[in-house]
Amino acid sequence: MTNDTMQRIVLARRPQGAPVPEDFRLETLPIPQPGPGEVLVGVSHLSLDPYMRGRMDAGKSYAAAVELGQTMEGGAVGQVLASQAPDLAEGDWVFGPLGWASHAVLPGHALRRLDPGQAPVTTALGVLGMPGFTGWYGLTELGRPRTGETLVVAAATGPVGSMVGQLAKLRGLRVVGIAGGARKCRLAVEEFGFDACIDHKDAGGRARDARSIGAELEEACPDGIDIYFENVGGAVLQAVLGLMNPQGRIPLCGTIAWYDLGGMGRDGGTGPDMLPRAWRTILVNRLKVSGFIISDHWNRLPDFLAEVAPLVGSGQVRYREDIAKGLENAPAAFIAMLKGGNLGKQIVQIA
Amino acid sequence: MTNDTMQRIVLARRPQGAPVPEDFRLETLPIPQPGPGEVLVGVSHLSLDPYMRGRMDAGKSYAAAVELGQTMEGGAVGQVLASQAPDLAEGDWVFGPLGWASHAVLPGHALRRLDPGQAPVTTALGVLGMPGFTGWYGLTELGRPRTGETLVVAAATGPVGSMVGQLAKLRGLRVVGIAGGARKCRLAVEEFGFDACIDHKDAGGRARDARSIGAELEEACPDGIDIYFENVGGAVLQAVLGLMNPQGRIPLCGTIAWYDLGGMGRDGGTGPDMLPRAWRTILVNRLKVSGFIISDHWNRLPDFLAEVAPLVGSGQVRYREDIAKGLENAPAAFIAMLKGGNLGKQIVQIA
Repeated sequence: MTNDTMQRIVLARRPQGAPVPEDFRLETLPIPQPGPGEVLVGVSHLSLDPYMRGRMDAGKSYAAAVELGQTMEGGAVGQVLASQAPDLAEGDWVFGPLGWASHAVLPGHALRRLDPGQAPVTTALGVLGMPGFTGWYGLTELGRPRTGETLVVAAATGPVGSMVGQLAKLRGLRVVGIAGGARKCRLAVEEFGFDACIDHKDAGGRARDARSIGAELEEACPDGIDIYFENVGGAVLQAVLGLMNPQGRIPLCGTIAWYDLGGMGRDGGTGPDMLPRAWRTILVNRLKVSGFIISDHWNRLPDFLAEVAPLVGSGQVRYREDIAKGLENAPAAFIAMLKGGNLGKQIVQIA
Repeated sequence: MTNDTMQRIVLARRPQGAPVPEDFRLETLPIPQPGPGEVLVGVSHLSLDPYMRGRMDAGKSYAAAVELGQTMEGGAVGQVLASQAPDLAEGDWVFGPLGWASHAVLPGHALRRLDPGQAPVTTALGVLGMPGFTGWYGLTELGRPRTGETLVVAAATGPVGSMVGQLAKLRGLRVVGIAGGARKCRLAVEEFGFDACIDHKDAGGRARDARSIGAELEEACPDGIDIYFENVGGAVLQAVLGLMNPQGRIPLCGTIAWYDLGGMGRDGGTGPDMLPRAWRTILVNRLKVSGFIISDHWNRLPDFLAEVAPLVGSGQVRYREDIAKGLENAPAAFIAMLKGGNLGKQIVQIA
């Protein structure tokens, strides 16, 4: 990469099941120049998030798929290198959909200016960014937590799960996490203050089945489960369903365990059909399952920041970042994250 | 049955799959006498409802199972034969949980007095009773219908489905029903005013698969589906899921297609697992699935009656009853109803 070239990662082909390195390609190309109203940003840190797996499939989803040969989508922070937008100046820190790239040109209105004096800029990718906002919105608006209730959330040390768990603790709930591996479970309890955290892997690192997770969950939730913040699906969902209390709520923002199943046309293989059991549980326990996509709710971002930024500042809400180095390592970090290899919010440092 | 004996139907054994006549037993026993605060009712008409199938299983549900050897539960109307309750007199018409029996003794407070001059007493079992109330509550409170939207409901000619469809039409929605057989589909359109009704059986009377139902549904719902009032599950649910619009609502009050699967421990066999697809659809389309049990909401019954009784009186909401004769024929009528053999609200005339 010379002074007038940039790098980017493009989608080389659509994954068959779990993504592999060959699904991505690193490209070098000239740095584009901003037109009227646009800015050139030098990317500092890229966010890696599970939703990106969905963008790699051609199937219909809530957002368009990334086209083959196009830059992988992603939120990132960086500094303005050149501006033709009225409200942004060289040197400003910004957050926006900069993509998996070292540089990006975007309209000024697509970027949000950050104040690096208020919080480290990387927090705009995690605890004070989309993942934290997702946790806050889903818990507050759809989970409707009440003191004394019990909440369960998986991916407990991730940026969504750790936000959900900490906010629920602050509201007086019993909070039980689920995470992969003893180290993450310790982190959930010791760093994020969860009451308990259940390992969804056995001592040999293999996935435990729903029955085994359910037995431990039942012990950790003696009063049942009132809120299940759903971001994984799979065996955890199956384990949770049998323990939901009447009038329980399930905010649903992800099903990472099933992402490799692909689009609507495919199913989960040839196992038993779990839908009748799930549907019956929703009925019998009068549950509310609410799918949500955080991009529908950006108008609430100021409310989120007003409430949570001070809590982060005071240390009442803590966060953990896992920073990989170098754009060329983004695919490997992404692949590892989908398998739970990260510890905290996965970020790639670019510059 | 002499003047001082009564008849009842008891649960003889728990069904294996679909109920059969041997699961029930007709018994003759002495007529009990009311104690202080109680009344003796001579049952006139018994309601048969799909929820009763759930009561026959031992599994945990939202209400206790009927014990073996005990009278089958059921709502019914009848006349007071003897009263030791202050507010009820001999000859009064009442509705209450009288069970599958010719006579019943109940505390006066468990009964609701009916005015036979206002509406035929059998309407307290259907259009102005629990099924109609279920349709009204689920549509109004959970479906949140808006003019111009599209609603789909199965069992379209049943007392729940016909209420949902007619109320939705009155609110300016496009209403598409699903029913079994050409006769029911005609009834839905011609009698209940549905815009269309899709037959879930083929010309030979066999169940159609989700793909086939879905293709026809797609034609009947050119703008997609905003509300799916769920009372059946099965292939209809699968067909509907692919057509739900963003921000759609699914009030869920029954899964009759799956009732014979039994309690929580059993699943739908060895087909593909539909739960990942359903969960993904809920997420991607930001659906709200709300399980509800109408008995949680009896406090809203006066609101329902105030709104709907005049509509029934004026003929804007129509109803259809299917009346079998004789308590001894209740099991056969119930078994037939679970297979869709009834046309309209299934009632058994006792006296």
